[in-house]
Amino acid sequence: MARVYNFAAGPAAIPLEVLEAAQKELLEYGSSGQSVMEMSHRSKEYVEIYDRAKASLNKAMGVPEGYSTLLIQGGASLQFSAAPLNLTQEGASAAYADTGNFAHAAIGEAKRYVNVNVIADASNDNYTYVPDIASVPQDAAYCYITTNNTVYGTRFPKLPDTGAVPLVADMSSNILSEEYDVSRFGVIFAGAQKNIGPAGLTVVIVRSDLLGKARAACPKILNWKTMADADSMPNTPATYAIYIAGLCADWLLKQGGVKAIEKINIEKSKLLYNYLDNSKTFSNPVRVDSRSRMNVVFKSHSPELDDRFCKEAAKAGLVNLKGHRAVGGMRASIYNAMPIEGVKALIDFLKKFESGL
Amino acid sequence: MARVYNFAAGPAAIPLEVLEAAQKELLEYGSSGQSVMEMSHRSKEYVEIYDRAKASLNKAMGVPEGYSTLLIQGGASLQFSAAPLNLTQEGASAAYADTGNFAHAAIGEAKRYVNVNVIADASNDNYTYVPDIASVPQDAAYCYITTNNTVYGTRFPKLPDTGAVPLVADMSSNILSEEYDVSRFGVIFAGAQKNIGPAGLTVVIVRSDLLGKARAACPKILNWKTMADADSMPNTPATYAIYIAGLCADWLLKQGGVKAIEKINIEKSKLLYNYLDNSKTFSNPVRVDSRSRMNVVFKSHSPELDDRFCKEAAKAGLVNLKGHRAVGGMRASIYNAMPIEGVKALIDFLKKFESGL
Repeated sequence: MARVYNFAAGPAAIPLEVLEAAQKELLEYGSSGQSVMEMSHRSKEYVEIYDRAKASLNKAMGVPEGYSTLLIQGGASLQFSAAPLNLTQEGASAAYADTGNFAHAAIGEAKRYVNVNVIADASNDNYTYVPDIASVPQDAAYCYITTNNTVYGTRFPKLPDTGAVPLVADMSSNILSEEYDVSRFGVIFAGAQKNIGPAGLTVVIVRSDLLGKARAACPKILNWKTMADADSMPNTPATYAIYIAGLCADWLLKQGGVKAIEKINIEKSKLLYNYLDNSKTFSNPVRVDSRSRMNVVFKSHSPELDDRFCKEAAKAGLVNLKGHRAVGGMRASIYNAMPIEGVKALIDFLKKFESGL
Repeated sequence: MARVYNFAAGPAAIPLEVLEAAQKELLEYGSSGQSVMEMSHRSKEYVEIYDRAKASLNKAMGVPEGYSTLLIQGGASLQFSAAPLNLTQEGASAAYADTGNFAHAAIGEAKRYVNVNVIADASNDNYTYVPDIASVPQDAAYCYITTNNTVYGTRFPKLPDTGAVPLVADMSSNILSEEYDVSRFGVIFAGAQKNIGPAGLTVVIVRSDLLGKARAACPKILNWKTMADADSMPNTPATYAIYIAGLCADWLLKQGGVKAIEKINIEKSKLLYNYLDNSKTFSNPVRVDSRSRMNVVFKSHSPELDDRFCKEAAKAGLVNLKGHRAVGGMRASIYNAMPIEGVKALIDFLKKFESGL
């Protein structure tokens, strides 16, 4: 089969150039006589790979002085626990926005450790919009948001003004897809498997003054300060995933960085939303101001037709379009590595499918 | 450069056949049109890869009914915290054997959660042997050992009889290298980067009756029951590392499994220890009954000569022989993927070096 257009929500498409580079040097990196996968994480060769990957990620994100970038394991879900364990002591409160299923799961996890104050809640409207956060209680240890909601296809149109309260963001599904001013955040974290690289890597960007506040009961490997002090290597990191993430970041910088890819992402999502808004068969339920640029959800009139659409699309090389079970219908995840040609191919196929009904 | 013999302690050598297979299908797995790295962990293609990898690992380890095998993230060091969090409530005691630096680190971490009873301690003799464990206090929630000590090159010559107390073992550096009766253990865990596959994957094998005992404060992603119930996918697993681990397990089964590789490992380590025991320049400090088959530590008379040896060996394609900073000297890690030819090449080089002094 030819290479498909992969609309998976994550793990997701990786730029072909990156895969080709990885393939070429899979048996031997440079003249090291070894695969990157075999390298000691303390070896000179690997430390160079690591440093370059981190520098490229920092450059792409525009991480300013005064922040530590951690390249760690466990997924964003492990950070749902790490955030309260690192930022609070017992009895503290934290403000959370409930804007989708990962936000909801983060709230569930936080409740083990802190008093959760839900300051914005879109659950009663099936998460089809992102509520405005008018104000953040100043006694909160932090304010937690999910900048893009993968399952429901929504996005924070504007960041809340949290005053002196550190803003903590799960940015898993839109990191590196649009410009963010990192200095507005206390903590940003993201699973790699959407816009950063392969699964098995989590990027955490922490403002330095928030390090060193963890509870005594915080597992060492979840402690951001332990990680920052050892440059993410108190133990063996996910060496190969970091190498691939570095190649992806270099690819992104070559495209002109986040500024350039943001323009393309806006164009890609506009094309698809325009089509859906004018379709007689398919529609998107999300309030216009809250629409995600990364995950475009849509439905026809019936689950049977949705199912038929997904099957026929897959045969045409447009794969993983099935929506999350919480929502049904379809979801086209169009991360950085999805070229505009893929979105156009999807729209062409939607048109063809519709005209054949 | 030609392919080197990589004596790294982990990440370490991976069988060339595995790397070649991975390289061949890096751009497209089967006729899926995608790289394994890009596959949704919920996709039919990936679930097949996952199931096969787990089945091969279980087969190679001889995991009996009544155990769950978890393929998770975070490294063995995260399991240092997970063990007490999953197996005890506040106020409990646990018995630990202090036989090396990872065992010592596990004790340090356990002290956050339980009363640690150190029932065997080799620290006063610089960890050059593994003490016998005569008896285990029956009020301990579990008894914790490190079956092979990577840094000091020692190995438990015989497992302790723990009675009704569950035996918990960090088997990171000798899992799959020799036959173990899994039914003697409550929990076995191992970072993948020595004998299982690439870094970024941790295998945990838990006896079913030990699931469901975690503390309320145990992070969800550290909870073995959550992991077992969701077949290690409550969140996205380290998809690519699992795929490579599956290829490595298939390679091992093709060699005749653990039984066959154990014979080779005994032969490899014997050759090297025999050489060292007869050398006038190099020696191994470990008590004979406690010698590791995976990590062979040795030294000359001076740090300067050790340093020169490592440099010259590297030039000859024998790399990563430098010992851990806690011990100095050299360490040859000769895991499953190190062919006997590599050990012979090392011995030849040692002889040549010695005769040139």
